Order: sequence, then structure tokens, then C-alpha cells
Amino acid sequence: MNAPDHPAAQGKIMLVGLGPGSHDHLTARARAAIAEADTIIGYVTYIRLIADLVEGKEVIKKSMTEELDRAVEALDRARQGKKVALISSGDAGVYGMAGPTFEVLFQAGWTPDADIEVEIVPGASAINTCAALVGAPLTHDFCAISLSDLLTPWPTIARRLDAVAYADFVVALYNPKSGRRTQQIVEAQRLFLRHRDPQTPVAIVKSGHRPKQRIELTTLERMAEAEIGMLSTVLIGNSNTFIKHGLMVTPRGYANKYAVEAGERNTHAGEQAGRSLSTGLNGWLATIQASGRSAAELAADYGLPEDYIAAALLSELPPAGEEAEIEG
Amino acid sequence: MNAPDHPAAQGKIMLVGLGPGSHDHLTARARAAIAEADTIIGYVTYIRLIADLVEGKEVIKKSMTEELDRAVEALDRARQGKKVALISSGDAGVYGMAGPTFEVLFQAGWTPDADIEVEIVPGASAINTCAALVGAPLTHDFCAISLSDLLTPWPTIARRLDAVAYADFVVALYNPKSGRRTQQIVEAQRLFLRHRDPQTPVAIVKSGHRPKQRIELTTLERMAEAEIGMLSTVLIGNSNTFIKHGLMVTPRGYANKYAVEAGERNTHAGEQAGRSLSTGLNGWLATIQASGRSAAELAADYGLPEDYIAAALLSELPPAGEEAEIEG
Repeated sequence: MNAPDHPAAQGKIMLVGLGPGSHDHLTARARAAIAEADTIIGYVTYIRLIADLVEGKEVIKKSMTEELDRAVEALDRARQGKKVALISSGDAGVYGMAGPTFEVLFQAGWTPDADIEVEIVPGASAINTCAALVGAPLTHDFCAISLSDLLTPWPTIARRLDAVAYADFVVALYNPKSGRRTQQIVEAQRLFLRHRDPQTPVAIVKSGHRPKQRIELTTLERMAEAEIGMLSTVLIGNSNTFIKHGLMVTPRGYANKYAVEAGERNTHAGEQAGRSLSTGLNGWLATIQASGRSAAELAADYGLPEDYIAAALLSELPPAGEEAEIEG
Repeated sequence: MNAPDHPAAQGKIMLVGLGPGSHDHLTARARAAIAEADTIIGYVTYIRLIADLVEGKEVIKKSMTEELDRAVEALDRARQGKKVALISSGDAGVYGMAGPTFEVLFQAGWTPDADIEVEIVPGASAINTCAALVGAPLTHDFCAISLSDLLTPWPTIARRLDAVAYADFVVALYNPKSGRRTQQIVEAQRLFLRHRDPQTPVAIVKSGHRPKQRIELTTLERMAEAEIGMLSTVLIGNSNTFIKHGLMVTPRGYANKYAVEAGERNTHAGEQAGRSLSTGLNGWLATIQASGRSAAELAADYGLPEDYIAAALLSELPPAGEEAEIEG
């Protein structure tokens, strides 16, 4: 940080993720950042969630569409030496204010060694906080897709939906529906049904961890009929996800370690439940190299690109061995 | 909750996500859950992160491989009427203890109205907390993939890598590499290079928000050469992600709202920068229906399945209209 010629107060922009909005789920740093700030800027709904923490501060409430205005106001105040908290629900980096703010800062010629400090305070995103309310749906690979086509071309969104439906991710849909934008969730359902069982579990969480919280468990087949709005997050399970006793759970792959009730799990194409050790990378390379089958045949079997299989057939087998993994 | 015949203390299992591990990023609820617990169970490395919060409690340290043991111990203590905090780094639902715990509970005949309460305390996952350290890479659709093939067949992982590389997600790789498991990151790179520019920005965050934090910004082409270990998270940008002044930023799609320096953005196939309003679902349906082109031609143009395009060509145009969206 360069020392300013005049010893003025140094401005700061803090991008604060509130988590779901209840004070219980604020991090210590998020709360301290709000306390440290002279100025609070955010969407009016989110400012309401922390109303008791912003008394005596300058509070700038913006509508949903004024994201760039929020960033411009933050920069303006920070240039005056103010400490500004730009608040987002969930995580400030996930469809939040962090991206637009850096774009505005760069555009204004800001650099990290300039006289305005920028701090990002992470928070739990809607995918995490909604998942916590319905069970354990995110135990395996997952992704987040916004169905808002306001700034993203629909074909880009559709390609993403199709790709992750095929590749069997657990998927969270952000911005699934709004008053005027009602067809996107139907299109998403159509793309998913090309690859997934109509009975795939789906959870719809509205206003999670807030007073008007509402949770609905349904299926892919019935998803589009459910009550979904601007404050809903839609969680679609993978091919192994099940609902039991009102909880949505995605197993991580422990099928070989204890008995599992019949009918709760499916084995995905190319996957063998309980045979994971032998189907890791090394085991798989050994299997395909010993198979005597062509790259084209193997590509069809495994649903993988032929050129990738061809390279794998030529690759040297690394020494075998497995070890435990870290959590995320 | 059914009243027990004997008024014994009611057991409770709290699945607590610590976030990155520093006390600053603990939520109020996570801290309170740890305080409320009689017994703390977790991986030894994570227990060390909260050592000062667990004094005077029974602390059960487990190795990385003993996930089911941890869940079984938690159930055992909860049956004795204890309050147990099962701790995970990041979010307890993301490759964490929530999934294995519900599986063990179900196996033991537990139901939500039984005498043991279960609470999931969400936290910010590594994808969020690492992103906060490098800029704003998650501004657009993203996914998380674990490269651990200990419990997941490699073809499943490879299909997922290929699908999301094609569909232009921002991707976080969890468990990217370990002492013995070094080839998976090379395979991931190979699959990504089938679809992505070798110059795609990549950030590698090791021990984020902890004393030994280390951040490396690199490219897809050089990713596999970087220092990556068990405590690293790898963030791969999408086709619009750029690095500027040491920050990794994914634009959300504001290209039409202010000037952008040449060379920082690419327009993805089928995507027109700054033309988002006319390429939303309604605009796109109108465009393809007026094009006079066949479903096969359009499928090739847009990289979407022909049957999906065929259905879209027949679909009724919903009334036009756009509105603002909620953040996540």
C-alpha cells in the first residue's frame, strides 16, 4: 500500500457475504466488517436483514437492478476515506457484488496497491445453507446454475443444464423463476429429463433460515408445478440421491462398507457400486488397456470422448496405491 | 419429537462446518454449537483449528479414513444423551460429514422424530473462501468436482470434467492431488484442454485463511506443474475469466454497460457479448423460429441436442419481458 501524500483516512471497500441472513449464520468477520463500516450499501431486502446492526451509519439502499450503481457509490465513498460495506446475501462472490465491484474498480483505474483497500468476506452461499435444511444433498460433486437470462444468453444456460444433467451432478438452480420469467424452469426440467430419472429427488427451499422459510420435497417430474419464486433455490439430486424420512441425502460411495436397503441406490452407467477401489484411475487404466477393445468401443461404453480414451490407452500405468482424502 | 418414557437428557448431533478454520470465519451458530457440545469429534487437523474452544470437553480425534467411525461414535454418544459436535472444515455438507452421518443414522433405524436431534450448521465451503482470496472468480455458474477416485469411479469423474469444461463453468477441484495420487490432475488438465484455451486463468489456493496460506495464479496450460497438495483447492476460470493486477475475476455479463479493454474478454461460441437481452430465452426462441433453419443445423450452431432444438422450434413464444434478479 503506498503511503498517501496527505495523511487522510484510508478508504476501504468490504464485500460482505451475509450467509442466509439470520444473525446466527453471520461469521464473526462479517459482523465486525459491518461494525467497522461508516457506510452500508446493498439491496433493500438484505439491508432489512441486518437493520439492527447498521444504526447510526450511512445506509444506501438500492434496488435489485442497481448493482453497478452500488459499486460506483462504494468507490465514491471510499475515495472520501470512508469504510464501506457492500453487502450481499449468501457469499459475496456467488452471483454477488464482488464481480461487478472489481469491474467498476478496474474501469476507474484502481489497483490493489492504490489507496483503497478491498476485502472480500466470504459467507455460506444459498446452495450450502439450503442443503443444510433438507439433509445432505451435496455430499458429491455439485454445481450452481443461474436461470436468469438477463445477462447470459439462453443457449449458454441450456448447454450447461444439458451437460451437468448428463454428467450426473447435484445441481442448484439460482434465480429459478420470477414473476415474468416462468418458462426457464420448464426448459431446465425438459433438459434434465433427457438424462435423468423422472423420480430424481428435488428440494425447493424458499427464504431458507428466514422467518418465511418454506421447504418442499418433490421430484424432477413434478418440479415445474411446485411453488417457486425469486427467493427460492432448487436443488436437484444426482442418480444416487434419495429421500428418506423427509431428508434428501446423496451417498458418497460407501455402499461397500455396510448394507444398504434395496431400492435406495442406483448404479450409474459405467459405475459399479462398492467397486470403487478397482475403478479409480489406475484400476480403470489397467482395465481398459487389458480389454483388447478399441478406443471407439470404450468411448461408447464409458460415455467419454474417443480421443481421450485413445490417449488413456497409450498412457503409462502409474504405480498403484490409494490413500485417504481431505474433506471440503 | 416423542417424549421419552424416562426424562433423560436428549442426545443431539450437530454437524458443524467450520469454514476455512480461522475463528474470524466461524459463524455465530457454529461457535455456539461447539460451546453447547459435550463431545467434539473430528479429523485431528480440524480439531487443532479450534483447540481453544474445546477445553474441558470430551474430544475424539480421528484420522482422515475414519469417517464412518466418527459417525458411529457420534451416534453412540448421542444415545447416551450427550450433545455431540461432529466438525468438518468448510461446509459440513460438501464432501463432509453430513452424508456419512445420515447414512449411519438411517442404517441404525434412526428417524427425525426419534429421540436424537440432528442439526446441520452450514459454513462457507473451500470454493467460496478460496475464491474470496483471489478476487471474484465465481461471479458466474460454477461447480465443484473432487478428483479423489477412492470412492468414485474415474470414468464418472472424467465425464464430469469433460462436461463442465465443454459447458464453460468456473470449476473448483477439491482433493486435486495427494502424495500417491498425482496423475488425476494431469488427466483433468488434458480433459479441460480439449475445450478450453491453454491461457485460461487458474488459481491454486493452499491452506486458505490459515497461517500457511499460499496462493498461486497460473494458467490451464501450466496448472499441472504447480505446487498442489492435499490442502489445495484449484479454481479454473471460464472463457471470460481474466487476471488483472493479481486478481482473478469472472465478469457477470456487463460488457454492454461500460467499455472493456480489448483482449480481456472472449465471446463464447453462440454467445454475443452485450446482446444479452435479445439472447434470453424469449429472444432466442424468436430468433430460431424465424431463422428457417433445420433443428439439425441449429443444434450444430448452438452446441445443443437436436431433440431439444426440435421441441424449442415447436414451443409457443411466451410474452416478452425481463426483470431484475436476486443475488445468491
